[in-house]
Amino acid sequence: MSENITRADGRAVNQLREITIERGWSEQAEGSALISFGKTKVLCTASFTSGVPRWMTGKGKGWVTAEYAMIPRSTNSRMDREAVKGKIGGRTHEISRLIGRSLRAVVNTKALGENTIVIDCDVLQADGGTRTAAITGAYVALAEAIQWGKDNNLIPKSAEPLIDSVAAVSVGIIDGTPMLDLAYVEDVRAETDMNVVVTGRGLFVEVQGTAEGAPFDRNELTALLDLAVAGAEDLTNFQRQALA
Amino acid sequence: MSENITRADGRAVNQLREITIERGWSEQAEGSALISFGKTKVLCTASFTSGVPRWMTGKGKGWVTAEYAMIPRSTNSRMDREAVKGKIGGRTHEISRLIGRSLRAVVNTKALGENTIVIDCDVLQADGGTRTAAITGAYVALAEAIQWGKDNNLIPKSAEPLIDSVAAVSVGIIDGTPMLDLAYVEDVRAETDMNVVVTGRGLFVEVQGTAEGAPFDRNELTALLDLAVAGAEDLTNFQRQALA
Amino acid sequence: MSENITRADGRAVNQLREITIERGWSEQAEGSALISFGKTKVLCTASFTSGVPRWMTGKGKGWVTAEYAMIPRSTNSRMDREAVKGKIGGRTHEISRLIGRSLRAVVNTKALGENTIVIDCDVLQADGGTRTAAITGAYVALAEAIQWGKDNNLIPKSAEPLIDSVAAVSVGIIDGTPMLDLAYVEDVRAETDMNVVVTGRGLFVEVQGTAEGAPFDRNELTALLDLAVAGAEDLTNFQRQALA
Amino acid sequence: MSENITRADGRAVNQLREITIERGWSEQAEGSALISFGKTKVLCTASFTSGVPRWMTGKGKGWVTAEYAMIPRSTNSRMDREAVKGKIGGRTHEISRLIGRSLRAVVNTKALGENTIVIDCDVLQADGGTRTAAITGAYVALAEAIQWGKDNNLIPKSAEPLIDSVAAVSVGIIDGTPMLDLAYVEDVRAETDMNVVVTGRGLFVEVQGTAEGAPFDRNELTALLDLAVAGAEDLTNFQRQALA
Amino acid sequence: MSENITRADGRAVNQLREITIERGWSEQAEGSALISFGKTKVLCTASFTSGVPRWMTGKGKGWVTAEYAMIPRSTNSRMDREAVKGKIGGRTHEISRLIGRSLRAVVNTKALGENTIVIDCDVLQADGGTRTAAITGAYVALAEAIQWGKDNNLIPKSAEPLIDSVAAVSVGIIDGTPMLDLAYVEDVRAETDMNVVVTGRGLFVEVQGTAEGAPFDRNELTALLDLAVAGAEDLTNFQRQALA
Amino acid sequence: MSENITRADGRAVNQLREITIERGWSEQAEGSALISFGKTKVLCTASFTSGVPRWMTGKGKGWVTAEYAMIPRSTNSRMDREAVKGKIGGRTHEISRLIGRSLRAVVNTKALGENTIVIDCDVLQADGGTRTAAITGAYVALAEAIQWGKDNNLIPKSAEPLIDSVAAVSVGIIDGTPMLDLAYVEDVRAETDMNVVVTGRGLFVEVQGTAEGAPFDRNELTALLDLAVAGAEDLTNFQRQALA
Repeated sequence: MSENITRADGRAVNQLREITIERGWSEQAEGSALISFGKTKVLCTASFTSGVPRWMTGKGKGWVTAEYAMIPRSTNSRMDREAVKGKIGGRTHEISRLIGRSLRAVVNTKALGENTIVIDCDVLQADGGTRTAAITGAYVALAEAIQWGKDNNLIPKSAEPLIDSVAAVSVGIIDGTPMLDLAYVEDVRAETDMNVVVTGRGLFVEVQGTAEGAPFDRNELTALLDLAVAGAEDLTNFQRQALA
Repeated sequence: MSENITRADGRAVNQLREITIERGWSEQAEGSALISFGKTKVLCTASFTSGVPRWMTGKGKGWVTAEYAMIPRSTNSRMDREAVKGKIGGRTHEISRLIGRSLRAVVNTKALGENTIVIDCDVLQADGGTRTAAITGAYVALAEAIQWGKDNNLIPKSAEPLIDSVAAVSVGIIDGTPMLDLAYVEDVRAETDMNVVVTGRGLFVEVQGTAEGAPFDRNELTALLDLAVAGAEDLTNFQRQALA
Repeated sequence: MSENITRADGRAVNQLREITIERGWSEQAEGSALISFGKTKVLCTASFTSGVPRWMTGKGKGWVTAEYAMIPRSTNSRMDREAVKGKIGGRTHEISRLIGRSLRAVVNTKALGENTIVIDCDVLQADGGTRTAAITGAYVALAEAIQWGKDNNLIPKSAEPLIDSVAAVSVGIIDGTPMLDLAYVEDVRAETDMNVVVTGRGLFVEVQGTAEGAPFDRNELTALLDLAVAGAEDLTNFQRQALA
Repeated sequence: MSENITRADGRAVNQLREITIERGWSEQAEGSALISFGKTKVLCTASFTSGVPRWMTGKGKGWVTAEYAMIPRSTNSRMDREAVKGKIGGRTHEISRLIGRSLRAVVNTKALGENTIVIDCDVLQADGGTRTAAITGAYVALAEAIQWGKDNNLIPKSAEPLIDSVAAVSVGIIDGTPMLDLAYVEDVRAETDMNVVVTGRGLFVEVQGTAEGAPFDRNELTALLDLAVAGAEDLTNFQRQALA
Repeated sequence: MSENITRADGRAVNQLREITIERGWSEQAEGSALISFGKTKVLCTASFTSGVPRWMTGKGKGWVTAEYAMIPRSTNSRMDREAVKGKIGGRTHEISRLIGRSLRAVVNTKALGENTIVIDCDVLQADGGTRTAAITGAYVALAEAIQWGKDNNLIPKSAEPLIDSVAAVSVGIIDGTPMLDLAYVEDVRAETDMNVVVTGRGLFVEVQGTAEGAPFDRNELTALLDLAVAGAEDLTNFQRQALA
Repeated sequence: MSENITRADGRAVNQLREITIERGWSEQAEGSALISFGKTKVLCTASFTSGVPRWMTGKGKGWVTAEYAMIPRSTNSRMDREAVKGKIGGRTHEISRLIGRSLRAVVNTKALGENTIVIDCDVLQADGGTRTAAITGAYVALAEAIQWGKDNNLIPKSAEPLIDSVAAVSVGIIDGTPMLDLAYVEDVRAETDMNVVVTGRGLFVEVQGTAEGAPFDRNELTALLDLAVAGAEDLTNFQRQALA
């Protein structure tokens, strides 16, 4: 891996795009964040409601779940609206489930109590890495909603529903070089594409590596994980600033 | 009608909420506008493609259509996502069709040529008047996309696909008083609710009045129309500034 | 507006088509009417059931709703069946909602008690004006069902759930001339098309005017409303005779 | 089997209900019939179009198919509309397929040429035997549409697309007695229920017998078939009169 | 009918294909059977649960129902998966309902008690006669599940929920000759195709005869029923052996 | 990691369950395999057709895709059928996509030519690891279908569409111990669950690790990958034997 290689947008191979997190964007939701990874923009809202779905009632535990969607012209050419097609595609399902699992990995549902938080991640503009931006922004919205729950006495002030923070970043191998936080033009050329979800303490929640072109070997896997862990650390700092 | 009555947010009965139009919000779409009517925020994108749907081919005419949707937590309490429910509700259908008709009323489809423009209006935050904000913003996105078509030689420079501009505003009767541009708290209390779509020249494209509570008489109808025509004139000015 | 203009079917511009209302057509429903506006024929049935949907329980109020549909060969060329397509189109949704709102505008739901009346309007033959015929016939079926409710002691004899009657008629501008109750051949040529729902007392419930071709001005709007109010008065008389 | 048993409506066990066939009911369809078997009323329309579905093109053969549906309040208590539920139930599918097969059994598709006839059978009022009334009425609509095809030179005058007529009737065993043409109150009590589709020449197209209660033996089967064949003969005569 | 005619696979006209029934194939289900009629293979599982659907609660009766499906490449050319198409086809519905009715005809639901048994018949390989194989195998799975219910004290040891056994076989007329248990190559050539469901005591549960080509006469019907009754007797013996 | 720990079924932590692969199970499909990982049984069929989907035509490349499904009673308690629910769940989508990507990673689509191979993986019995069994069996069915294509001159004899083999295995951490090939009872207890898809040459195609309970650290990830690579090597040998 050569860190001297210059990328289309001038970044170093181990450099994130410009990250901005606008916390509290929504005046309606209990928590929200408009997050940008370069041109990728995702609006994350957290909806807090007392009570849990029927199948969870009476266990003294809360529930956190997520839904992901793209507005039709978030992408370079317009996609059909899933509501119009009448069904949700496989990719959407996959990402919604990934976001939900990633958040639940840092939530103590007992401490949350019988409350439900639904995170909606709507991609307003897409330029690669929408799922990692969504997870990173979703955490901020979640944290804000949990604070709202405490402020409104729906969660005890002393409870600690968040046991860690969580962020996500993509890494990939392009022309043999491992790179961090792929933009769309990079993503389509990547031989291997990996999304890594890491907690604030540096533990793994999800490692999803896929050989889009040629399969990868153990050394490449190691290099990608190194990049991801470092990138996630940076994202954790952006989250802390946003929540400060 | 007493224009001295003060409304919840301090406006006069014939006063619009704060209107902002951020043209070119999207870096992906050929035309776009993020429009606000107070807290109501709608992202309008226009997608320009050469060619028309198969049923229109060979007529030498273009096609303009629209889709409207709300993100789940645009509203005060979260709504289920229509894509998840697997079908589009009646209200969504109704508004999508209204926006499409409103735009087509000011388009000369012959001058547009065999090109298609799809306008997507995604409500990011809802506080009443989402359909009127959507129409007003959609026009700006449409105009921008038509300019893009000319700049890219898909529409002849000399063609005039836009024969007028179009804007929309809601009016209603609350406690017997006709008022302009209802916010959500006003909308739910209105006895009568009317959405009026007016061209830049002051002609009517749509008049949709509904007695939510008590039916209304001819005088009330007249007063509502007067308010709407004046409000639409103001909106037309905002559109002109955004497109300047 | 010249009332001397003769229309395709020989009517004067302010003349309804032949109206017939066959009350009690169905031997199954609590209320029913087969209504004709010329060749347009709509079968309206009212289904009375004790109780209300769960979200309304315990409020001491009743519920009136409506569904509209067309049989596939009601029209000149066969349409696909919505059940086969697996979803209801926007136009169907729109009209179902319009019928429901129109009826609720003349119902005192407190006086109805916790009872539900569902009106089904199935278009058996379509020649323009199906939604206005549906509303006009639906009122007759509704009134019959309410009487059934009283006869069967589900509504107190002294209760007055109907606070007014309601009828609807279409008006439009064809070649510059405002006309009443458009047949299909007129409807497709109309520059402006308006459906007006009026109570027996002459108050407006819905005013839905749409510029199909050129936008319309205030004078045209006035002329259309005058025609509609007079036409609705005639329809109210037909309803009275049917219910006598 | 005792033919002296009197039924709820006074009929003999081998007697049809009152049969009426109003041919040409629809002013829109190429063929139509409003058929009644007692209170059961089915509107059958035939839609004739040139050409066949893509998978049949170029074989020189025509296509006949059918769709069956019930309006929501055709029955004693209102059913949900299949279009609203978003899917067609098993019973509806089954009957649509049965009607289509029954009609195709008497059609020479070569003689029909590359034309398509779609029969819609919409049940307006249901009191048992809706599928048999539908088949019997559908044949009349089909014959009328084929005549229309000849009159409009879409089928050669010399062609004979109909090789026979077809009618259908239900039979069943109630309290041990085989009976013809069951009304709803009989149908629900029947131990065995059989629908038999017979051509004008007395040949079987479909025999669908079902033990709703106790299984039936060979003698009962023989008695039911005898009743059905005689009843179908009567229906064939009603069809002839309607088409005369 | 000549019994000397030799069929494609060398069978006599009144001879079944090779029948095998592997009881208890599934280690998960309360009852199961993998049944083969020649190359046709159907996996039948019976799922036993305490309780009944809400609409049956409190009547002291059990419920037996069935679902039929084919895996996509059970057939000679791959079919689209119904789950992917998002709806169940008419044929699938029809067969599922047929299996359910056939089983219920031999079940005393009072003796079953408030328990539900769902039979799933998944066709793994199809070579004609899948519905008859499914019914025949489903009975074995059902009997096994009922025994499981007794062994697990969910049904009283003394109860007799099964009042008879049930099996099914297809018969058809090919080139004028009635034949038993049609393989796919025979099925597609059959002029008439009949599925007959018969109890162990020789009574009819279902008789479903369809003229695929020419309508059939009474003598042909008689010959087909004779073949079916004899074939069903053989199947009953195979069931007994499997359950021994 | 202690390899002395004994598991519920007596296996060592690095030991696969009993693996069987019955190649050519289906007499209908061009390729097939019934694979077992212990009690988990998946029927994999490969359907070979000339030509590719329209969006791929003319590129001289083939297409390989996969669909995964479970029969309703493959699991310990019956699941609703996705075709009945009318939509495919997120998990099903995810696994279908995973199988397709895994297979495409070892296919040279140019060498395959414009042919399509669809792999269906239907789980007949589920006891954990269904997706890994499906991938492993799918490869065998794919290889058989490619051989069929060569034997039938749809692929040139000299072409080498398979550039490697592919197999998959699950690994997980239970009570702190990394283990290979989790059975269902282990899977539900695993803190971390990882599915690893590896080629015959030992390269990674997919690495999908998920913290179901506590997030995992880098050392645990290393241990899991070691186990998976060794297990996949064993599976590769089983595949070779099946294809010999």
